[in-house]
Amino acid sequence: MTVMSLTATLMAAKKAKGMSFADLEAAIGLDEVWVASLFYGQATASKEEAEKLAGLLSLDAETTAALQEYPTKGSLEPVIPTDPLIYRFYEIMQVYGMPLKDVIQEHFGDGIMSAIDFTIDVDKVEDPKGDRVKIVMCGKFLPYKKW
Amino acid sequence: MTVMSLTATLMAAKKAKGMSFADLEAAIGLDEVWVASLFYGQATASKEEAEKLAGLLSLDAETTAALQEYPTKGSLEPVIPTDPLIYRFYEIMQVYGMPLKDVIQEHFGDGIMSAIDFTIDVDKVEDPKGDRVKIVMCGKFLPYKKW
Amino acid sequence: MTVMSLTATLMAAKKAKGMSFADLEAAIGLDEVWVASLFYGQATASKEEAEKLAGLLSLDAETTAALQEYPTKGSLEPVIPTDPLIYRFYEIMQVYGMPLKDVIQEHFGDGIMSAIDFTIDVDKVEDPKGDRVKIVMCGKFLPYKKW
Amino acid sequence: MTVMSLTATLMAAKKAKGMSFADLEAAIGLDEVWVASLFYGQATASKEEAEKLAGLLSLDAETTAALQEYPTKGSLEPVIPTDPLIYRFYEIMQVYGMPLKDVIQEHFGDGIMSAIDFTIDVDKVEDPKGDRVKIVMCGKFLPYKKW
Amino acid sequence: MTVMSLTATLMAAKKAKGMSFADLEAAIGLDEVWVASLFYGQATASKEEAEKLAGLLSLDAETTAALQEYPTKGSLEPVIPTDPLIYRFYEIMQVYGMPLKDVIQEHFGDGIMSAIDFTIDVDKVEDPKGDRVKIVMCGKFLPYKKW
Amino acid sequence: MTVMSLTATLMAAKKAKGMSFADLEAAIGLDEVWVASLFYGQATASKEEAEKLAGLLSLDAETTAALQEYPTKGSLEPVIPTDPLIYRFYEIMQVYGMPLKDVIQEHFGDGIMSAIDFTIDVDKVEDPKGDRVKIVMCGKFLPYKKW
Amino acid sequence: MTVMSLTATLMAAKKAKGMSFADLEAAIGLDEVWVASLFYGQATASKEEAEKLAGLLSLDAETTAALQEYPTKGSLEPVIPTDPLIYRFYEIMQVYGMPLKDVIQEHFGDGIMSAIDFTIDVDKVEDPKGDRVKIVMCGKFLPYKKW
Amino acid sequence: MTVMSLTATLMAAKKAKGMSFADLEAAIGLDEVWVASLFYGQATASKEEAEKLAGLLSLDAETTAALQEYPTKGSLEPVIPTDPLIYRFYEIMQVYGMPLKDVIQEHFGDGIMSAIDFTIDVDKVEDPKGDRVKIVMCGKFLPYKKW
Amino acid sequence: MTVMSLTATLMAAKKAKGMSFADLEAAIGLDEVWVASLFYGQATASKEEAEKLAGLLSLDAETTAALQEYPTKGSLEPVIPTDPLIYRFYEIMQVYGMPLKDVIQEHFGDGIMSAIDFTIDVDKVEDPKGDRVKIVMCGKFLPYKKW
Amino acid sequence: MTVMSLTATLMAAKKAKGMSFADLEAAIGLDEVWVASLFYGQATASKEEAEKLAGLLSLDAETTAALQEYPTKGSLEPVIPTDPLIYRFYEIMQVYGMPLKDVIQEHFGDGIMSAIDFTIDVDKVEDPKGDRVKIVMCGKFLPYKKW
Repeated sequence: MTVMSLTATLMAAKKAKGMSFADLEAAIGLDEVWVASLFYGQATASKEEAEKLAGLLSLDAETTAALQEYPTKGSLEPVIPTDPLIYRFYEIMQVYGMPLKDVIQEHFGDGIMSAIDFTIDVDKVEDPKGDRVKIVMCGKFLPYKKW
Repeated sequence: MTVMSLTATLMAAKKAKGMSFADLEAAIGLDEVWVASLFYGQATASKEEAEKLAGLLSLDAETTAALQEYPTKGSLEPVIPTDPLIYRFYEIMQVYGMPLKDVIQEHFGDGIMSAIDFTIDVDKVEDPKGDRVKIVMCGKFLPYKKW
Repeated sequence: MTVMSLTATLMAAKKAKGMSFADLEAAIGLDEVWVASLFYGQATASKEEAEKLAGLLSLDAETTAALQEYPTKGSLEPVIPTDPLIYRFYEIMQVYGMPLKDVIQEHFGDGIMSAIDFTIDVDKVEDPKGDRVKIVMCGKFLPYKKW
Repeated sequence: MTVMSLTATLMAAKKAKGMSFADLEAAIGLDEVWVASLFYGQATASKEEAEKLAGLLSLDAETTAALQEYPTKGSLEPVIPTDPLIYRFYEIMQVYGMPLKDVIQEHFGDGIMSAIDFTIDVDKVEDPKGDRVKIVMCGKFLPYKKW
Repeated sequence: MTVMSLTATLMAAKKAKGMSFADLEAAIGLDEVWVASLFYGQATASKEEAEKLAGLLSLDAETTAALQEYPTKGSLEPVIPTDPLIYRFYEIMQVYGMPLKDVIQEHFGDGIMSAIDFTIDVDKVEDPKGDRVKIVMCGKFLPYKKW
Repeated sequence: MTVMSLTATLMAAKKAKGMSFADLEAAIGLDEVWVASLFYGQATASKEEAEKLAGLLSLDAETTAALQEYPTKGSLEPVIPTDPLIYRFYEIMQVYGMPLKDVIQEHFGDGIMSAIDFTIDVDKVEDPKGDRVKIVMCGKFLPYKKW
Repeated sequence: MTVMSLTATLMAAKKAKGMSFADLEAAIGLDEVWVASLFYGQATASKEEAEKLAGLLSLDAETTAALQEYPTKGSLEPVIPTDPLIYRFYEIMQVYGMPLKDVIQEHFGDGIMSAIDFTIDVDKVEDPKGDRVKIVMCGKFLPYKKW
Repeated sequence: MTVMSLTATLMAAKKAKGMSFADLEAAIGLDEVWVASLFYGQATASKEEAEKLAGLLSLDAETTAALQEYPTKGSLEPVIPTDPLIYRFYEIMQVYGMPLKDVIQEHFGDGIMSAIDFTIDVDKVEDPKGDRVKIVMCGKFLPYKKW
Repeated sequence: MTVMSLTATLMAAKKAKGMSFADLEAAIGLDEVWVASLFYGQATASKEEAEKLAGLLSLDAETTAALQEYPTKGSLEPVIPTDPLIYRFYEIMQVYGMPLKDVIQEHFGDGIMSAIDFTIDVDKVEDPKGDRVKIVMCGKFLPYKKW
Repeated sequence: MTVMSLTATLMAAKKAKGMSFADLEAAIGLDEVWVASLFYGQATASKEEAEKLAGLLSLDAETTAALQEYPTKGSLEPVIPTDPLIYRFYEIMQVYGMPLKDVIQEHFGDGIMSAIDFTIDVDKVEDPKGDRVKIVMCGKFLPYKKW
């Protein structure tokens, strides 16, 4: 089962049940972004999580098994994404990447923010001049090891 | 004055004064990430802001003028950055880009998070298992216009 | 339903009805360029708009539903388009990109023309030496935020 | 004299005189975008135009001569520009390129809008919800020749 | 009908009739290179031309209709072609591109040779030391417009 | 002496003498395109040719020697040229490459047109609707060898 | 018949007959590398050669015809091959390309080794320290033409 | 000392002495291609070899030392070379790469021809129809190890 | 049988038998990484090895034959892998490539570590602060040959 | 001080002292690969480490300060390295990347080997058939977090 057909199957099942990712978050207790990343073949469910989802979305056994495999991650095409919503994250990295590097290093020293021991959340901030999207990333700081 | 030499001049001045970006934030009332983006030629200072910085860092007139110009933004090389700290943001976009798109669209409809009417902050979250880097992005939601 | 098959289905239906995009503009009150962008999976119709189109073009339910989804946008191949008509827009950006940036910034300050809160129209300008294509783009100016 | 140093010389001269591109348009009777494209080494001035500019901006003989040469055009770097203002034109081509092609062809037949016999203008449209940038492109339609 | 299958259908039909492109030129009065470019989905036939070809090659209605559509042009892969015959044109552009630019501009001024209002012919020049391929390109000179 | 400074030196010398490439063709009996390709470091002069040019353009000994070296050829940047005049040759290859391949092969068999045993000429074809650029390429046909 | 399926068909037929490329060389009197290049759709057989191969390998009529067509050549993917055996030829060009250019030019003057009027052979050189692969390339020297 | 200036220094010294690479081969007993690869910073001389060359070419101490360092190898630009002589090696790999792989593997099994334990020689083959370039590569066969 | 379907078949067979690569290592006496590389079409089994695997995994004859063919190796997509686990190896090469080159050359001289006469092993190092992955690469040193 | 000139300064100082990286390891108690990565601007020294090195290599104050800064890491050019020693690591990732991913995941679950909390060592394994290079990488396993 390719990632593409896994995503298509899951999206169709979710649509048939009329559930949003926020509904799935409420039902299985994992963040809606994480659930969406599972739908896109970027994360792995435990047996329990997969079965809970299978129950909610009436998934067949093959799909339920596929949710538990370790995916090959990251597959946007082209390499620099053209979708405007996703491109903005590339632009943020282009414009604010070096400033973030300096500020993080001033506070933490030489190292990185982990993208593995990491969470990401989306919130809506209501604003009379137009609502705002708030994205919170939180990753463990990993200092460079010397040896 | 090229961006590269502007950055070098500003960094040297800041180092000579022994100030961090957090010190500059405290002194001029603008976020440390924004100040760093100004140092990297990604943002524009007003006359007042430039002069305040010039006073704090003993900048010459040419540098003070350069801070007020509209830069050509975004200049990481290569196109996919190799610095591990910055690359992680590219990886986050590769792994979580499509999930974010879906979740944002479920909450807001078809549109994007602006990277222009936008702020980005860095915090340290202390944690006994290792401190964590917290990054908060907040941008205006822009719905696609029909005509 | 992939974008490619959505486009093919819609184009075939439009051809079967003998309608141009200008006819569709007249019938549903949205610009012909916007309608064409909907056909290429670059925009989203509301339920009412999708159903009006479905009536005009005798679309089936799956196609009508597909018109209401939020597409992944921008998918020219190769990255620098080879079709001469489309390439000219790339050439215009190469030749006039920096001049436009300077002129826009002299009039508006540091910021961008939105490509989301944005319209684009095509007109024919009759001219005895050969008709001319007139393209009008109009996007909200977004000033860079400071924080 | 490289294009880069030509641009730098002209920009410095314009700044020293305190003139905007709109001022130059008023003074020499050619559009501000065209004048800016001349500054960026993308267009050629006649002897009269070059001398008029030389008078206005107190240019030396070498710079005045350089304005009359036929430049090698188009030199944004990288190939897909990262500056957000310029990138939006790339995004417009990605999102609206195929729709524009179809609409232009429905009105004109198989051919292109010339980017050579071509003008481009920038206007400000005042709007209480935020001013808008209006860009008007107008190019001769060139039908494909058969032979 | 994709360009690829259109090409395959036309090539098979031409082979079944035992006709060369030169035979088609003789039969329909359009140059063999233009006819070949039609076969590769790079040009558009009028209704009369398509029907004449349909008669000569016993084409079905779908293929005859496809010949009259406006194709998306230019689709060599990879971006720099590897086929030795086609690559030589890329090499000619690499080696003689700048010299041609200078010579054309000395004779015509700042502008380009149109690739739209354009013809291209192939001839065989017999030579005892080995026959030669002669290619004649002829395109309208388009001077850059000022405004 | 780099190719770039060789070109700059030769161009300045030619300009100082007020000669066009056509004048040089008349003076030394070699085609203006070939002479221009020598100026761009894409061809090699014999001792006699170099000295004749040195006499005409008052070149120093180092430049005269540099004309006789075997250059590393082909150096347009970027890989797909952005200058509109030169890009059109890339577009011609994209649009007419496969048709040319087929027509050449129908007349000559499996092989290529040499880009080495090759000449290229530029002519002006006067035309009341606008003068035309005529480019004639003529290269030896090289059939594939079997062994 | 695509090149890929032609190759697959020929490889399967050869395997079914238990023949190596060396066996085919012995049977039809053409070098094993040339025969392999025919299998990969990089060369063209005459009618006689195709029929001799068809007899040896029990090929059907479609495959026999496909062997006589003029292929579009060169189709390694990606552009810089990752297969270690083939990559080594890329590495040899990277490391020894400029040295070869200089040595060839010292012996022959300004020109190239033809890759069309060209043969390539593989031999095994037995060696107690490990057998060696010997590859002999032999191509006509083509001097640059002046005109 | 950069590779580029090392090459320039060595080439100038060799020219001043009026020696060809073949002369250097005769004088120091190492193949002319290897000597040329040393000039291009792709190989390392022993102390004795470097000093012998220093004597022959009157090199200074810094250059003599630079010949003994381990270079970073392979630096053609662009990645796919545009010089026609060098490009032909890329074309040979594109056209004959897979055939060579198969023939080598039929004779030797799964493995590669080493490009390290490797020699390459150039010869002139006189031929009344035009002299031929003969290139002989000879590398140790390295079978894939299992473990 | 494509590499992709070979991998899918083998993975499914292994899963059906409930075996890990470590189990296969125990059963056939070849390292788990080598066995996995065979599954991904990057290595070749002998007849005995293929049949042993066929017995263990109940493979059919076609799959068993496919295991014995010489694969075209290396096929990660895109060229710079996006999967975080695999990307880290690219990052290690970016960050530690030049340091490794220098250290290896200080110990061994000018040459390389073979990736053909080469083994690679994975171990788990238990650690109370979090287990560690240990990867041991061991390849024959190949000194550059002179000739 | 750019990374390039930092590297050049440090290499020259080390050469002047006649020390190898192994000598530096012995003198300062940090691994030779880590020391080399510091020389290439890929790691950061503490004040004490920098001063110890400064004493050993007689470094000036600017260089000593530069060793303590947080570098922008990873800067091989081109993106896929051409140096044969370094390329082999790219090849290993191409050939063994997916197998390593599977084997690591079978032992550890879904996650990665850290390239930050990471060490890398080089050893020489003496072998009568030719010495071998042994490289040991050891990085903390980081499991993907769920949230």
